[in-house]
Amino acid sequence: MSRVNLQFIKGLAKTTPSKIILLVVDGLGGLPDNVSGKTELETANTPNLDLLAAKSICGLSDPVSPGITSGSAPGHLALFGYDPITYLIGRGALEAMGIDFPLMPGDVAARGNFCTVDKEGIITDRRAGRILTEQSTKLCDLINNITIDGVTVLALPVKDHRMCLVLRGKGLSSAISDSDPQQVGMAPLKVLADNPGAERTAEIINKYLERVKEILSSYESANMLLLRGFDGKPELPAMSEIYKLKPAAIASYPMYRGLARAVGMEILKTGISVEDEIATLKQHYANHDFFFIHIKETDARGEDGDFSAKVKALEHLDKLIPEITALNPDVIVVAGDHSTPATMKGHSWHSVPVLIHSQWCRPDAVQQFTELACIYGGLGRIAATDIMPLAMANALKLNKYGA
Amino acid sequence: MSRVNLQFIKGLAKTTPSKIILLVVDGLGGLPDNVSGKTELETANTPNLDLLAAKSICGLSDPVSPGITSGSAPGHLALFGYDPITYLIGRGALEAMGIDFPLMPGDVAARGNFCTVDKEGIITDRRAGRILTEQSTKLCDLINNITIDGVTVLALPVKDHRMCLVLRGKGLSSAISDSDPQQVGMAPLKVLADNPGAERTAEIINKYLERVKEILSSYESANMLLLRGFDGKPELPAMSEIYKLKPAAIASYPMYRGLARAVGMEILKTGISVEDEIATLKQHYANHDFFFIHIKETDARGEDGDFSAKVKALEHLDKLIPEITALNPDVIVVAGDHSTPATMKGHSWHSVPVLIHSQWCRPDAVQQFTELACIYGGLGRIAATDIMPLAMANALKLNKYGA
Repeated sequence: MSRVNLQFIKGLAKTTPSKIILLVVDGLGGLPDNVSGKTELETANTPNLDLLAAKSICGLSDPVSPGITSGSAPGHLALFGYDPITYLIGRGALEAMGIDFPLMPGDVAARGNFCTVDKEGIITDRRAGRILTEQSTKLCDLINNITIDGVTVLALPVKDHRMCLVLRGKGLSSAISDSDPQQVGMAPLKVLADNPGAERTAEIINKYLERVKEILSSYESANMLLLRGFDGKPELPAMSEIYKLKPAAIASYPMYRGLARAVGMEILKTGISVEDEIATLKQHYANHDFFFIHIKETDARGEDGDFSAKVKALEHLDKLIPEITALNPDVIVVAGDHSTPATMKGHSWHSVPVLIHSQWCRPDAVQQFTELACIYGGLGRIAATDIMPLAMANALKLNKYGA
Repeated sequence: MSRVNLQFIKGLAKTTPSKIILLVVDGLGGLPDNVSGKTELETANTPNLDLLAAKSICGLSDPVSPGITSGSAPGHLALFGYDPITYLIGRGALEAMGIDFPLMPGDVAARGNFCTVDKEGIITDRRAGRILTEQSTKLCDLINNITIDGVTVLALPVKDHRMCLVLRGKGLSSAISDSDPQQVGMAPLKVLADNPGAERTAEIINKYLERVKEILSSYESANMLLLRGFDGKPELPAMSEIYKLKPAAIASYPMYRGLARAVGMEILKTGISVEDEIATLKQHYANHDFFFIHIKETDARGEDGDFSAKVKALEHLDKLIPEITALNPDVIVVAGDHSTPATMKGHSWHSVPVLIHSQWCRPDAVQQFTELACIYGGLGRIAATDIMPLAMANALKLNKYGA
């Protein structure tokens, strides 16, 4: 985390007409390919990002702390300036927010996967062949709105094999373990209470999962549900309160909209492509002074382990950079929530390149937007939570501290 | 300190077959020689360390915080990932652990030096000409097992002029000042209580030191005792609990074995030379997943102010590096507990070069393992407490944080 906290920043923040664009390239950082010895960013032809880096102050950011591999939620909260250790949001709460489901105080939510189990109940596919949203919507209908011990269980479709489970009733607790063992070859786990106060909730979930198993038992595949990340409605201070901004989020994937909503951003309706997201930015540019734009493709291709597809995603984004810079925002930040090296097929702990461009940024000698070049940047190695104060400073939205 | 604490790391750590070697080169960092303008590391011919650096991610570490000169204990605790400000161990407790003396809860221990005083009781040599262990063992016998006010005082020989004093009895406190003024030309200091609860302990020590003076008064040299670093039994969480490792320590000097024992490492029996230590590593390599190897010579020669001897110690170590890398550990870290520039003849606050090598380390452009080259390393300037989380991450022993 940064040396300063949100309340400190709140004491300095002021509203001005200047505009900040925070472009979050999900899973931005990478590792060298075994053959070429170059990372995804080093391989990609990104003249526009390089040009921007040359006019920016650059560096490397740690989403949580050196050595810690960050999930998407802590990685984004850190970029929004929220200490990701203080403000931990469970996956379930994020999924609910991402489908615009209004969690109420006392609700408990979980992320669900439709999966496939064999006749012995052993998981053979954790994602049930990534079934289509249409199919999972039908499955959710079968297991939705079931009442157990006075608690209503809602099954809400999200996307593909993903769904969101919400428990609504009195005396619930989210201090319960996952049923998702996160690997195949095992049966789904029994949900356990972390403390005596959560025992009833665990029991209700276990009863519910037995019902689900019965209801879906006639199907060959997508015949069971895996739950993880139980959590209640998150309570975070709004960005409007802390930064005195009027922030907007442009994100095609539900979870990132959920994250943005959790910190009080207005969620702008957008399409699935980067082009759609940029069109949305242009359309609403006059109405906000802070825009969070989320680019998913880079992370998805990194997770796939598809090095050249991640390179292509970076090149695709690069071609559209001039459309963003043409808006002439006072501050543009290009950052990542964590690294997703294609060679590791997943998130990693490696520090993430970041650039901050403004009239006042004090450019360094960095001429390329790569992991290696950013080592030599003027920002050095910073905590991701420092990026937002720097963006605010570059937008001249922070008053002086002390006399 | 790191942004994360031990409990946070404990929540992410997992046991895997991968192996980590932490090579601690005591007093590694240096300063330029007045004539050549080069540091000890820059002067030394270290082709193997340079080759390793070229394949590693490098940087500079602060043992405690920028500007703070670290003792050996905080420097090592930081490298083991323990915040050296939270977990302060007194010298006395370390000395006791280093001679395998089992401190009990309630004991108070101190580091002692046999010294030489003149007829007026003024210290003329703080180390009594570095008398041999044989002689200090005899002296200890003379002043051992003395009971004062119901408290037993034990005098235990350590090495050369060094000894360890242990007080065992009821109601003792370690909140007392040193008798060692750490300079010649003064009389030993009266031990003072930091608070009223420690007054009785201070009085017992002062009475004991009067007895020691009487008993040793017939000797020309080694005729007095200086005490410092009063402390009780340290209570630190074990590395096995935090990191889920099976850690082993290879250290030829007692104090470093004591430090390793304090964090729950298994102490492997070894000889005095680096060759002995590496033989011990090879012998036990299959049985542990974490090895701390301590190299003392570099610090000792730095303390002596012998620039070229420190250079030789570095070159000697460098020749043996291939024997360590040949074991093909998943992660190898070369670090220092603090800088000991020969020009300063003591520990200093200067940041310390560090390299981390693994399949996943994301190498930077550093080609030499020197203070100057490491400035441009991919780690940047990190807290020494970040090294252990990075080593764990590189060994793929840390789970992802958050969804």
